[in-house]
Amino acid sequence: MKPNQKKIAEGILFTDEYQLTMAQLYYRFGLHEKNAQFDYFFRDYPEYGSHKAGYCINAGQAWLLDWIEEARFGDVEIEYLRSQRSAAGHQLFADDFLGWLKAHGTFESINILSVPEGRVVHPNTPIGVVTGWLAMAQILETALLNLQTYQTLIATKAARIKESTQGQMLLEFGARRAQERAAIAGARAALIGGADYSSNVGISHVLGYPPKGTHAHSLVQVFLALGGSELDAFQAYADLYPDDCILLVDTINTLDSGVPNAIKVFEGLRRKGHKPVGIRLDSGDLAYLSICAASMMDDAGFEDAKIVLSNNLDELAIWQIITQIQQEAPRYGIEPDVLVRRMVYGVGTGLITSRGDGALDGVYKLVAVQEQDEWVPAIKISETPQKTLTPGDKRLFRVYDERGQATADLIALSDENVADQDPLVMRHPSVGSMRRSLPASQIKRIEPLLEEAVRDGRPVQPSPTIEEMRALREADVDKLDPGVRRLVNPHVYHVSLTQKLWDLKQQMINRLNIGNHTE
Amino acid sequence: MKPNQKKIAEGILFTDEYQLTMAQLYYRFGLHEKNAQFDYFFRDYPEYGSHKAGYCINAGQAWLLDWIEEARFGDVEIEYLRSQRSAAGHQLFADDFLGWLKAHGTFESINILSVPEGRVVHPNTPIGVVTGWLAMAQILETALLNLQTYQTLIATKAARIKESTQGQMLLEFGARRAQERAAIAGARAALIGGADYSSNVGISHVLGYPPKGTHAHSLVQVFLALGGSELDAFQAYADLYPDDCILLVDTINTLDSGVPNAIKVFEGLRRKGHKPVGIRLDSGDLAYLSICAASMMDDAGFEDAKIVLSNNLDELAIWQIITQIQQEAPRYGIEPDVLVRRMVYGVGTGLITSRGDGALDGVYKLVAVQEQDEWVPAIKISETPQKTLTPGDKRLFRVYDERGQATADLIALSDENVADQDPLVMRHPSVGSMRRSLPASQIKRIEPLLEEAVRDGRPVQPSPTIEEMRALREADVDKLDPGVRRLVNPHVYHVSLTQKLWDLKQQMINRLNIGNHTE
Repeated sequence: MKPNQKKIAEGILFTDEYQLTMAQLYYRFGLHEKNAQFDYFFRDYPEYGSHKAGYCINAGQAWLLDWIEEARFGDVEIEYLRSQRSAAGHQLFADDFLGWLKAHGTFESINILSVPEGRVVHPNTPIGVVTGWLAMAQILETALLNLQTYQTLIATKAARIKESTQGQMLLEFGARRAQERAAIAGARAALIGGADYSSNVGISHVLGYPPKGTHAHSLVQVFLALGGSELDAFQAYADLYPDDCILLVDTINTLDSGVPNAIKVFEGLRRKGHKPVGIRLDSGDLAYLSICAASMMDDAGFEDAKIVLSNNLDELAIWQIITQIQQEAPRYGIEPDVLVRRMVYGVGTGLITSRGDGALDGVYKLVAVQEQDEWVPAIKISETPQKTLTPGDKRLFRVYDERGQATADLIALSDENVADQDPLVMRHPSVGSMRRSLPASQIKRIEPLLEEAVRDGRPVQPSPTIEEMRALREADVDKLDPGVRRLVNPHVYHVSLTQKLWDLKQQMINRLNIGNHTE
Repeated sequence: MKPNQKKIAEGILFTDEYQLTMAQLYYRFGLHEKNAQFDYFFRDYPEYGSHKAGYCINAGQAWLLDWIEEARFGDVEIEYLRSQRSAAGHQLFADDFLGWLKAHGTFESINILSVPEGRVVHPNTPIGVVTGWLAMAQILETALLNLQTYQTLIATKAARIKESTQGQMLLEFGARRAQERAAIAGARAALIGGADYSSNVGISHVLGYPPKGTHAHSLVQVFLALGGSELDAFQAYADLYPDDCILLVDTINTLDSGVPNAIKVFEGLRRKGHKPVGIRLDSGDLAYLSICAASMMDDAGFEDAKIVLSNNLDELAIWQIITQIQQEAPRYGIEPDVLVRRMVYGVGTGLITSRGDGALDGVYKLVAVQEQDEWVPAIKISETPQKTLTPGDKRLFRVYDERGQATADLIALSDENVADQDPLVMRHPSVGSMRRSLPASQIKRIEPLLEEAVRDGRPVQPSPTIEEMRALREADVDKLDPGVRRLVNPHVYHVSLTQKLWDLKQQMINRLNIGNHTE
């Protein structure tokens, strides 16, 4: 794509055609500047086939705010819309509507309340509450979902993979296999969610993290093709990078050639006063090879040398590798816990594409329309009760039990004071018979989760740093029960409605007279 | 991301750190301007869990060429690299290397032979052959794989989904659920691979296709919230878009409310001389609802009205819907083939993320280094014989049998004349016992697949249009045996080496003395 085409494709026309045809309809009926409220939420945790997430890590908002600030209907965009034709050959978008879009089609009417990036979030809770002119809030939908769901998906996957490493270093290696330029947003999301560093140079620079990397097979191949050896290639690398020397040992044969050659080179580094960093294993039985390589490096006195693993890793693969090390290492005279603590994991495709589930099912739904300063709730019924929308102008809270653990996320109407409710009644969003009643004495804290993010189309404050988002993530994950954090078959975290919100939802369902069963 | 950050993240620093550390090593050893050759290929067809592709559609090259033309080491990039530090605190990239990068770090030395976009391609064949200065060809790896593998993945998925529709219209609806900005490249790839149109406005504009769309539930919700009805919303839409009227009928209840209201509105359109386009179904049992809706519309005299399906579709879901229609429709007095021919499919997440397999396992491997105008072949051994590289300066051919059907893709050394080989001996790339011998009389044509795409860093010719690429795709798919085109458990297409290339590969394996079994 040429730079001028890129500008068009990534600007305000990064939207679905129907947002524009609806916007024109709202204009035609005088509804376009009526304030509307949309909730952004996702319907379910990522489900990776045999395993499933029990929580998500919110991410992506800062880049959405950047997009909102930049996106504008300029002459190019307006003239393109003017050129669109109906099936009968008429101009699809009328001049008066295009005139309005040109003059007023910005996001300056938009306000957003949002759960901060890095925080743990759960399905069917309003992570973002967007208010503003109906026409523009509608046009925002596509970009908002696109920019937020993917980063949340990847931050979530990174948190899971980090969990599987038992605290070891996690490197994001996915640029080449990412879904095209998602590589860039994905690296950011991975850093928020659990990766320590990325190999991707450009985005690492932008975010202020040093990019990480070793070398590829091609380095050894070049030396071989020119009549040299693997040892020559390793020696060249060590000469140039004596303090950052990680050697890839599987170009020829890991245990017969790669590791012995690496040890020779490490011995030379040691003589010159340098500390070799370690080796990288990229094929074969990584657990077995790690044990053997550790044993060989131990014998040579390199007990501190790291073992970097790569090749098709994800949370289950790493879990399996660590389990195998724990079971098998003692037979080789290796202390498993010591070996586990010298491992580093480089994860590419499995992280950056969220292997097993490539999309978070985020949605953006109209929940209220303003009439004379009152928010009139809006609903959408579904034959699947869980998919029936929770209507109205709402707020989101996290309820912590007496131990300080997060016990539920609670959705309330904006005019409710949840702190005063004793006992606090929490209703399942769709199943009438499921409710909890928690006396105030068993509640340590009720925390509002939504913060003001955008006022009149502008960010309220600068984006927090990646470090700050990581701190939020770590604090939130610490407050989850271990059952919720399980990699496989996690315990289901409670998401609830207040009694008042439940009643409103039921009234509206009954008014539409559909007779959905909600027991 | 801010625009200036985007420029950095998407420019020449869209690469992995190790490409740069290796480039500096090549520079230090005087190898950086030595010509090297890398093959781009993928290892296996996408595997979607229960089903697998039997062929891929090549895509993405034009945008790679655009990137190559734009990417440069400017002051910002060089100063960033100068700021990087080794673990010991020294400057990681030395000034002389950075000076060379600044002055010569362009892709002007790069030449690329490539299989054109839109063509059918198979695993382990050189789809791209890159030659040029070792340092720059190395730095290119990350962007090349990133820009080509994703579009090939999506063009392939689109071809499968198009196949499942039995020739009906396929709309790409995935912008909101795509892996971030992959939405844009994905829409292009979908249009090459089998989608007729996209809902994504910006990229449709860039590519010259009208974007398509209907309306969302929110339109009906707004009218309901303001005291109106679904019928009012439909009427408003029909008034504004009388010749493009597709109504979404599942906001309240598809058969009790949506379809009857749509028919009322359609009757009004008909009285005014307009032809309603149809309805969209977005939830529930789509096959059953299609049959019922068709029956209701038929009774009202709208036999031509389209039924657009959306909601979680992919090739298996569509196949199942059509099968169910074929089995169930007659019981409702509906002719199944007629109904199947009025269907339109809007596919979102399943297409744009390649549901089931989110990455094509593309690789970029050093296969030769130039010494005194000779290409010295390079190899990489693997303990998995299929992963052992096929070395050398190679070309790719497609062999058509006497019926004109594609029977094998054949990889040869560049100095071979495959047309003169009678019989043509074709060896399995890794299994010595598997070979075919085809007399010239049984060969209709041997077609070279690689074309010159880049000379001295510049495209040799303008990119073909999407229409031209679609024509290539259709012609190639027509020449595949039906077994190869099956959605599930496809017949394996032959990829072979010439005898001479096989011999070279074996010699090199034996020289590395690894004793890999290759029989």
